[in-house]
Amino acid sequence: MEGKEEDVRLGANKFSERQPIGTAAQGTDDKDYKEPPPAPLFEPGELKSWSFYRAGIAEFVATFLFLYISILTGIAWSFGGMIFALVYCTAGISGGHINPAVTFGLFLARKLSLTRAIFYIVMQCLGAICGAGVVKGFQKGLYMGNGGGANVVAPGYTKGDGLGAEIVGTFILVYTVFSATDAKRNARDSHVPILAPLPIGFAVFLVHLATIPITGTGINPARSLGAAIIYNRDHAWNDHWIFWVGPFIGAALAAIYHQVIIRAIPFKSRS
Amino acid sequence: MEGKEEDVRLGANKFSERQPIGTAAQGTDDKDYKEPPPAPLFEPGELKSWSFYRAGIAEFVATFLFLYISILTGIAWSFGGMIFALVYCTAGISGGHINPAVTFGLFLARKLSLTRAIFYIVMQCLGAICGAGVVKGFQKGLYMGNGGGANVVAPGYTKGDGLGAEIVGTFILVYTVFSATDAKRNARDSHVPILAPLPIGFAVFLVHLATIPITGTGINPARSLGAAIIYNRDHAWNDHWIFWVGPFIGAALAAIYHQVIIRAIPFKSRS
Amino acid sequence: MEGKEEDVRLGANKFSERQPIGTAAQGTDDKDYKEPPPAPLFEPGELKSWSFYRAGIAEFVATFLFLYISILTGIAWSFGGMIFALVYCTAGISGGHINPAVTFGLFLARKLSLTRAIFYIVMQCLGAICGAGVVKGFQKGLYMGNGGGANVVAPGYTKGDGLGAEIVGTFILVYTVFSATDAKRNARDSHVPILAPLPIGFAVFLVHLATIPITGTGINPARSLGAAIIYNRDHAWNDHWIFWVGPFIGAALAAIYHQVIIRAIPFKSRS
Amino acid sequence: MEGKEEDVRLGANKFSERQPIGTAAQGTDDKDYKEPPPAPLFEPGELKSWSFYRAGIAEFVATFLFLYISILTGIAWSFGGMIFALVYCTAGISGGHINPAVTFGLFLARKLSLTRAIFYIVMQCLGAICGAGVVKGFQKGLYMGNGGGANVVAPGYTKGDGLGAEIVGTFILVYTVFSATDAKRNARDSHVPILAPLPIGFAVFLVHLATIPITGTGINPARSLGAAIIYNRDHAWNDHWIFWVGPFIGAALAAIYHQVIIRAIPFKSRS
Repeated sequence: MEGKEEDVRLGANKFSERQPIGTAAQGTDDKDYKEPPPAPLFEPGELKSWSFYRAGIAEFVATFLFLYISILTGIAWSFGGMIFALVYCTAGISGGHINPAVTFGLFLARKLSLTRAIFYIVMQCLGAICGAGVVKGFQKGLYMGNGGGANVVAPGYTKGDGLGAEIVGTFILVYTVFSATDAKRNARDSHVPILAPLPIGFAVFLVHLATIPITGTGINPARSLGAAIIYNRDHAWNDHWIFWVGPFIGAALAAIYHQVIIRAIPFKSRS
Repeated sequence: MEGKEEDVRLGANKFSERQPIGTAAQGTDDKDYKEPPPAPLFEPGELKSWSFYRAGIAEFVATFLFLYISILTGIAWSFGGMIFALVYCTAGISGGHINPAVTFGLFLARKLSLTRAIFYIVMQCLGAICGAGVVKGFQKGLYMGNGGGANVVAPGYTKGDGLGAEIVGTFILVYTVFSATDAKRNARDSHVPILAPLPIGFAVFLVHLATIPITGTGINPARSLGAAIIYNRDHAWNDHWIFWVGPFIGAALAAIYHQVIIRAIPFKSRS
Repeated sequence: MEGKEEDVRLGANKFSERQPIGTAAQGTDDKDYKEPPPAPLFEPGELKSWSFYRAGIAEFVATFLFLYISILTGIAWSFGGMIFALVYCTAGISGGHINPAVTFGLFLARKLSLTRAIFYIVMQCLGAICGAGVVKGFQKGLYMGNGGGANVVAPGYTKGDGLGAEIVGTFILVYTVFSATDAKRNARDSHVPILAPLPIGFAVFLVHLATIPITGTGINPARSLGAAIIYNRDHAWNDHWIFWVGPFIGAALAAIYHQVIIRAIPFKSRS
Repeated sequence: MEGKEEDVRLGANKFSERQPIGTAAQGTDDKDYKEPPPAPLFEPGELKSWSFYRAGIAEFVATFLFLYISILTGIAWSFGGMIFALVYCTAGISGGHINPAVTFGLFLARKLSLTRAIFYIVMQCLGAICGAGVVKGFQKGLYMGNGGGANVVAPGYTKGDGLGAEIVGTFILVYTVFSATDAKRNARDSHVPILAPLPIGFAVFLVHLATIPITGTGINPARSLGAAIIYNRDHAWNDHWIFWVGPFIGAALAAIYHQVIIRAIPFKSRS
């Protein structure tokens, strides 16, 4: 595997994810910031680099651990706390998405290539399935007690309520991710990003606190899919589309809000 | 909209809020600090800049999300945690006030113009009304269960008790905001401000913990107004003045404490 | 008041506390660190500087707010959280002690003069008395419900148990304070101090969690004195000596551990 | 003790632990990072340096305080919070391991010498025994109420379940430690390490939350040994091997994951 060897020998991530969540953007020492160019849809060299596959493995492991801990505990704290620790650990390797909705939002803003986005989402889903499976295999009692961690719209709520809650919840998460990785912010104050995993974890925690009574809180399609596949009950599948459509709409709204209102990128490119 | 285009093209906030909460003051590299000049009451150019309107939108969105999450959960943690995440996200755009009392306190210290202060307060109130409205519309059960998040003086307490609790609580919050944005502090240790959203969130959390049994904890007139308008019961309106007068007195005391005692600005200008 | 005016005009803390808790030591840019010289016992010029009196006022206000919030809530979280927020706010003004045991420990290590240490302890005690008094005056119900926040040895424990718990608890707190303000640490990694208030707050929180069942947790003689004076019951006074002797022994042990074992200062000065 | 004196006089840690957890690696100012050379198995000079013994004492004191607080409180929060505060305090002195599994994992990655690893593990175990002993001596009621803090596989779980939970739990902890101390990360973003104690503490907290129902959560052989020796019941000893074998396997897996997958060190050394 030639690409891998060269990549490693150079000691650099030649084809790395554009803007890892928990780290400063390149060249943050000067006060002027440059909007990094949008990532190409396909970057053929990526597929030959070790850092590309390593990033996928890191997303797999992180999503695996996320599901393992959060299904075992079944409480809001553990979702937020685990995202905090895992984003911190994984940001330097893959960007630390651990969530297809985050990957989708960052892809819409052209922060990573389509190839990479798809690869991440596949690895996140596989990690989530394995994480839920290990909990079911090892700790059946806790697993069933927490309803397998599956997301369903709670009795007394309509599907519309659930979809709305998922949209707003994912908007909060992806809006926080965009704020934390904003290139302008990094340029002006290069030390801000070190705190990024903390508000992201907090956002996840608070959205869980607010939305658990309604849908069990998805805002992460990989997490919902992993739990649904391993739990595999009809009622977990009936509402499953909500936990893909809702998060993707929320992520898209956050990407639009950030790129159009906050960064005003369409207006810039006109000049 | 000429001003907007130019503002965006320059890639700079020409008429930005003077001292955003979560970011370092300009020119923090030298150990000598300069007190920034007081903001003028009216800065006509502001009204033509995109950054001015963007800041208002950011205050609207942040206050909207703050009400949405905190009314849904109805617990002290969520108020503090949400303020932490939102100040972190919004500080670079509008200063991250999300609270008319904070805006009022910073205006008294001449950190932003009167035009901007009024615009922020209006947008905060609108955001709060929409946030409370969405919770009522979507999740009626949780909304009523949490009493609509409305602030009233609890039975067994006098209006004076409630007013006192609001004054001390807002004093703590605005005192923390002033400490976190102090220009002298930034000059001496330019890395302190990145932590600013954390103590501010903690202060909000602890004041809620202490004051919820007394008034439900306002310390934020926009939040009280939004909840009152959407809830719209007589008893929520009877005490409503307390949640404007109390926070504004507390914010004024914090501004005086910081400017006169801590920064000794009156004595300086004499020399 | 000539000294005050000059101090303010210079824009510098000529006679400031030697090493504020939440800020970097002077001259942290070079990798070599210099042990700052021990503070003199009496520094006559201090008494004429505005920064000296301002520091006392800041200790008063911070201890006032600490007692106000922590007695109102009466729970472990609020002690730790409030210390975090207040150390963050006050560190730049007075060092952010808010606790006679911390002042005593830092005095033993010669980080501040005797004059200043005594002045701080007096202001801390006055602040604590006022904070407890305001809670009793305004919110009598919550005040009595929380037993006035007074520290007593719980039934089933001997006075020796209580004294031991106070010694170990204060050792943990003051050891954390010393670690956070270590000049060598600051020299090597100048960004560490910005986190200082966080571990200090955590240490306070955890010691409360562990020790509340035994003594209600003092580890702060001003807090114990303020609560005892306002509560003023016999049984609160009988054990009161424990909450001065224990914390001062714990603080002294932490000062010795840090200066002799960790920093090995006696061995250095021999050479 | 000549070595000690010279070491102290130089004001430097000549034979320090290679990569303390909470501090930046040496030479972080340049963007290029150099993998530090692997620590030798035996570094004879170490045994004559004061910093070597001081590090052991620091590990002893930290593990002592960790057991004291966490057994007294007996809850998940206190484990994570205490590790956060203690890693913060101890990182600059010994690296802040406070856990033989962490020491073992870092030794496998050749971050410290075998001599030092053994010395640390011995001191950690002694500290844990003393910490548990003091709780038993002073606060017998709380001690027995919390079951002496001993780790056993809970009824309804097999030994295999317990071993699996310990392996995954320790993997999460040691993986977080490796991520936080990664030399490449430090080189690229020298400010990340100041946050290291926070995610490490969070990881400990969340693993406790997830694993307490299964084994009481070991993931730290010194903590399990100290509790078992002082509690000294048959059933605490029967499962004891799980709390050494599990954590050491988990730490080894984390070391392999980090060195082989993330850092790709074997592939590098071939070139």
